[in-house]
Amino acid sequence: MNELHQHSIVIDGLNISNFDRTVFEEMQQGGVTAVNCTVSVWEGFQKTVENINRMTEAIEACSDIVMLARTTEDICQAKREDKTGIVLGFQNAHAFEDDLGYIGLFKALGVNVVQLCYNTQNLVGTGCYERDSGLSGFGREVVEEMNRLGMLIDLSHVGPQTASEVIAASNAPVCYSHCCPAGLKAHPRNKTDAQLKEIAEANGFVGVTMFSPFLKRGANAALDDYLEVIDYTIDVIGEDQVGIGTDFTQGHGPDFFDWITHDKGRYRRLTDFGQVVNPEGIRTIAEFPNITAAMQRAGWDETRIKKVMGDNWLRMFADVWGD
Amino acid sequence: MNELHQHSIVIDGLNISNFDRTVFEEMQQGGVTAVNCTVSVWEGFQKTVENINRMTEAIEACSDIVMLARTTEDICQAKREDKTGIVLGFQNAHAFEDDLGYIGLFKALGVNVVQLCYNTQNLVGTGCYERDSGLSGFGREVVEEMNRLGMLIDLSHVGPQTASEVIAASNAPVCYSHCCPAGLKAHPRNKTDAQLKEIAEANGFVGVTMFSPFLKRGANAALDDYLEVIDYTIDVIGEDQVGIGTDFTQGHGPDFFDWITHDKGRYRRLTDFGQVVNPEGIRTIAEFPNITAAMQRAGWDETRIKKVMGDNWLRMFADVWGD
Repeated sequence: MNELHQHSIVIDGLNISNFDRTVFEEMQQGGVTAVNCTVSVWEGFQKTVENINRMTEAIEACSDIVMLARTTEDICQAKREDKTGIVLGFQNAHAFEDDLGYIGLFKALGVNVVQLCYNTQNLVGTGCYERDSGLSGFGREVVEEMNRLGMLIDLSHVGPQTASEVIAASNAPVCYSHCCPAGLKAHPRNKTDAQLKEIAEANGFVGVTMFSPFLKRGANAALDDYLEVIDYTIDVIGEDQVGIGTDFTQGHGPDFFDWITHDKGRYRRLTDFGQVVNPEGIRTIAEFPNITAAMQRAGWDETRIKKVMGDNWLRMFADVWGD
Repeated sequence: MNELHQHSIVIDGLNISNFDRTVFEEMQQGGVTAVNCTVSVWEGFQKTVENINRMTEAIEACSDIVMLARTTEDICQAKREDKTGIVLGFQNAHAFEDDLGYIGLFKALGVNVVQLCYNTQNLVGTGCYERDSGLSGFGREVVEEMNRLGMLIDLSHVGPQTASEVIAASNAPVCYSHCCPAGLKAHPRNKTDAQLKEIAEANGFVGVTMFSPFLKRGANAALDDYLEVIDYTIDVIGEDQVGIGTDFTQGHGPDFFDWITHDKGRYRRLTDFGQVVNPEGIRTIAEFPNITAAMQRAGWDETRIKKVMGDNWLRMFADVWGD
């Protein structure tokens, strides 16, 4: 493996694969230190608890290669032990239902990153695929509670008004864990330069995704297209608040894409991604060393490479989780 | 009992008392033919089903004086048998959670009137005590499903933008089951003349409440103050689309008012009604004949009295329930 990559902290800020030993082994092959793994999207409280139980069992069954990461120290331990630290994350606050007490319960179970809305309106605010009406009163209480507990707020699929109001309301930095700049391709999920600057100026963070529908060349994109979006993002907000968020969906079939692209997983269709193919050179998480190599080829200095590959995410996690 | 009252269909379009034999007996004393009884406010699906079970048991235990009313024919039967027909209603679509299939399930259990939002934002839209952002995409699907099933949509506690959009979106008439005109007293829960006309022009309905915080004289109001708000409403929209919706809260103590005035029943306070005393002369549902008598004293003709006391509500129910 690429030597710089091997000695770096490497973090994938958002991954929604069908997590099993195959995917965990690819994380290992990819030299990935930690991954924010989605365990809730449209599910309510009870089904999310079941998802967490299944994930915890999978982690325990594969404890030779992965471990649950509740803290940044756990991520460092994973690095030392050549394992991948699994951070539990939600892409929707729907699992909080109407109970602020559930937030602390999920934190106790290891959930450390929660996106507030997924594509549509919930009790907290509105997602990016319908008219966005901003942060609700209950949403403000959710933000306060997540701040208090040290849980990272993710705004990737959140609508622009709700996102702005969360950035203003939160006492802790918040992130877009997986997005692309709208300056390169207009898309409801991509963020304008103004949005990128807004979150960065609030000490926030931008994980850059390689999800091909958000890239100019779509399914024809290759690794260099991904470097282009990272470069663009760094030009807008500098190199200290940028990281990787793949949005990989490995091991999922058409049913999964039907589920995520319909409201509540089964009602009206919100978007249609067509064919989802990750860029050539980074088709799976096993190919992560290719990113480092591409950055080297592009003449990036070692410090910048290490920051973007994982050091920035690690610092962000530490800031918010308070560990 | 007043003879005209005794021979009229008398309907209370909204009542949220602590339903037990005492209240049912007062309905009898009041000569009330049917009452829309709230069985869900902040509760989710499961607790609402439990509420319905408790209410069904209470109705069965008091089958000498009340009966479940699923249809307008049931209401007519209640009149013939000198019983009160209990219509099951929600003041919040929260119990639908994220599942359109629950709507038909509740209809099968006898739920026939559902207010879409209670004071704050839910998955459907927003209530009248926070910034209102309109009907959500999922909310449009809820409206369609309620239309399909013949379930009456209530907008009393819904915000003005959501209400307007529901009035425009619904294929069936909708109602404010319990409100007062803002033309007599400005209040977030009261409706402007424009709002009253908007719902009436869409063949909708206005139930006029006597909830004292919405009346000019508040806790000092008497029965004539109630007649004044009905008169005002008739002046705005005519006598055919107006009825009664008491919003009575008999048998409840301070815990209940704390619960209904905080978001989700326990978070931030949304409003404070202070002392809630029903107007003198109509302190409880047992005093309903006093309304008819006051209308007679005020010189109303018999047709208008019968319309407002219940005939209008009955026609509205028939229109929407499709029976």
